[in-house]
Amino acid sequence: MSELRKDPIVGRWVIISVERGKRPTDFVSPSQRKKGGFCPFCPGHEHTAPPEIMAFRPSGSPKDSPGWTLRVVPNKFPALQIHGELSKTGEGIFDKMNGIGAHEVVIETQDHNLALSTMPLKAVEDALWAYYMRLNDLKKDQRFKYVLIFKNEGEDAGASLEHTHTQLIALPIVPKLVKEEIDAAEKYFDFKDRCIFCDVINQELEDGRRVIYENKGYLALAPFAPRAPFETWILPKKHESAFYPPDKDFSLLADILQRILRQIDRILDVPPYNFIVHTSPFYDEANDYYHWHIEIMPKLTKIAGFEWGSGFYINPTPPEEAAKFMREAKI
Amino acid sequence: MSELRKDPIVGRWVIISVERGKRPTDFVSPSQRKKGGFCPFCPGHEHTAPPEIMAFRPSGSPKDSPGWTLRVVPNKFPALQIHGELSKTGEGIFDKMNGIGAHEVVIETQDHNLALSTMPLKAVEDALWAYYMRLNDLKKDQRFKYVLIFKNEGEDAGASLEHTHTQLIALPIVPKLVKEEIDAAEKYFDFKDRCIFCDVINQELEDGRRVIYENKGYLALAPFAPRAPFETWILPKKHESAFYPPDKDFSLLADILQRILRQIDRILDVPPYNFIVHTSPFYDEANDYYHWHIEIMPKLTKIAGFEWGSGFYINPTPPEEAAKFMREAKI
Repeated sequence: MSELRKDPIVGRWVIISVERGKRPTDFVSPSQRKKGGFCPFCPGHEHTAPPEIMAFRPSGSPKDSPGWTLRVVPNKFPALQIHGELSKTGEGIFDKMNGIGAHEVVIETQDHNLALSTMPLKAVEDALWAYYMRLNDLKKDQRFKYVLIFKNEGEDAGASLEHTHTQLIALPIVPKLVKEEIDAAEKYFDFKDRCIFCDVINQELEDGRRVIYENKGYLALAPFAPRAPFETWILPKKHESAFYPPDKDFSLLADILQRILRQIDRILDVPPYNFIVHTSPFYDEANDYYHWHIEIMPKLTKIAGFEWGSGFYINPTPPEEAAKFMREAKI
Repeated sequence: MSELRKDPIVGRWVIISVERGKRPTDFVSPSQRKKGGFCPFCPGHEHTAPPEIMAFRPSGSPKDSPGWTLRVVPNKFPALQIHGELSKTGEGIFDKMNGIGAHEVVIETQDHNLALSTMPLKAVEDALWAYYMRLNDLKKDQRFKYVLIFKNEGEDAGASLEHTHTQLIALPIVPKLVKEEIDAAEKYFDFKDRCIFCDVINQELEDGRRVIYENKGYLALAPFAPRAPFETWILPKKHESAFYPPDKDFSLLADILQRILRQIDRILDVPPYNFIVHTSPFYDEANDYYHWHIEIMPKLTKIAGFEWGSGFYINPTPPEEAAKFMREAKI
């Protein structure tokens, strides 16, 4: 089983695979992903993945058989293990716990060649529904405090398979950056009695230079201090603390998410990217101070190494220009 | 001029190049570094870089001429600009300042094919001396609070030139992760009246499993909760808050630094890597709670995209195993 370990100085938790650890030689000649090789996510190969957790498929069609439009399966090589009791221990100055958690994969389309940007809009809506349903289900497990929902699209963004998919990792802790963001928002609320994200939204809508797109429910913007070129945030315009649309309707979110991903594909020639859903932890889902949102980060530069070590970013593209290019993209 | 901008939520400062911003097309077809192309850092090409700030060269040999063994020059494409007054302004909810700072490059050898791991030990010692001298000089500038000293080695670690070099960026702010680390160490000291790094060193020396190498002055270890495989920290064994050796002798630090880099080269086949010197800010250099050190991060995996967005790391190699491989490396 893996372990969750906490850095004693800055309090950052990491998952360490203590059992099947990678040896130096595993890194020396990283195998290149073969284009067109065997794909475990394609229809007909359902049994090469662990049994499905849920799927959108014609009623009556058996589990783990073709015919689905979306499937959720456990990660075959999970970072954390679902079975067992959470056990927290110390080791002198160090803190750790066993690697209890869930690691799931949402396969949003059976078509190997589609992506969120190119699939039918209805499929994007279904994908958002699936994230939501899995989040709601994992929430019932008292061991978990947070679920990270993220997509690595393209090899350079960390995807190990070509077939598009999104991952959910349920955690017994709240990740450091998420916690920091939430704590900072809470502090702002204590001081101002307003949500800082709502304030940002209002100012950005009035200013306009960093606005990329908006529809009735959501706003997409280039943040004022982006870490990377073309970093884009999608936020609900009305205050919502967690990833649960008030009217259980994902159509407007699907619209803005697909549109942004299409703009990114268009102006940056289908770059690798990551997105992460930032939402409130399970133990404080309904609150006045935190505002859930999606952060999308095209992977364009190779400078991340030094930057994620220092927390200091050098971004060669002003967000005002990035937003303008995005707005003007012909999609 | 560039701008320093602060994220209003988490307080992270980033440098934004507001003038010569990169357009989408600049990212679409990144030019590959040509091996063996023109190198501005090689002897004879001194005049292609801005005039040298300092150099180790035979006495009497003119500035910006060949014959040097080490040179420090301003970065030709600086992220920050040295001239001008620091001006801090608000923009509604947002905070920014003009991009005042220094951005220097230490060229540690005239040999295009050497690296810190392969140059003579004396040259490594000289390199450390140069970092130290530049740090001391930049400290005199009242506008600066911190100097980041870091190396990107290899294209995948963000190096834009093949010829080995280290960068110094003098900043009017303290980078977020540095500040967090310092604040956390201070909090621990308030509680325990001990330096947390000293406590870690003592425990690790007693435990032994994560120790990679030690000499009379320094300890190299695989940290308990490493973000990445083979992450290595080098710390002075005795408490020192800033990167100034008490006896002004860099020989032991050169020994351990070169040895670690050789071990990394050996077992990981000369991987790209980053190192960052973590030291106290200028305004509080001599203190009891912070312990300067160097963090070295081989760049082996491509998973950083999602991880630097969430602050949550999955590391496939336990530090105990990494340390064992490093200890056993035949260098």
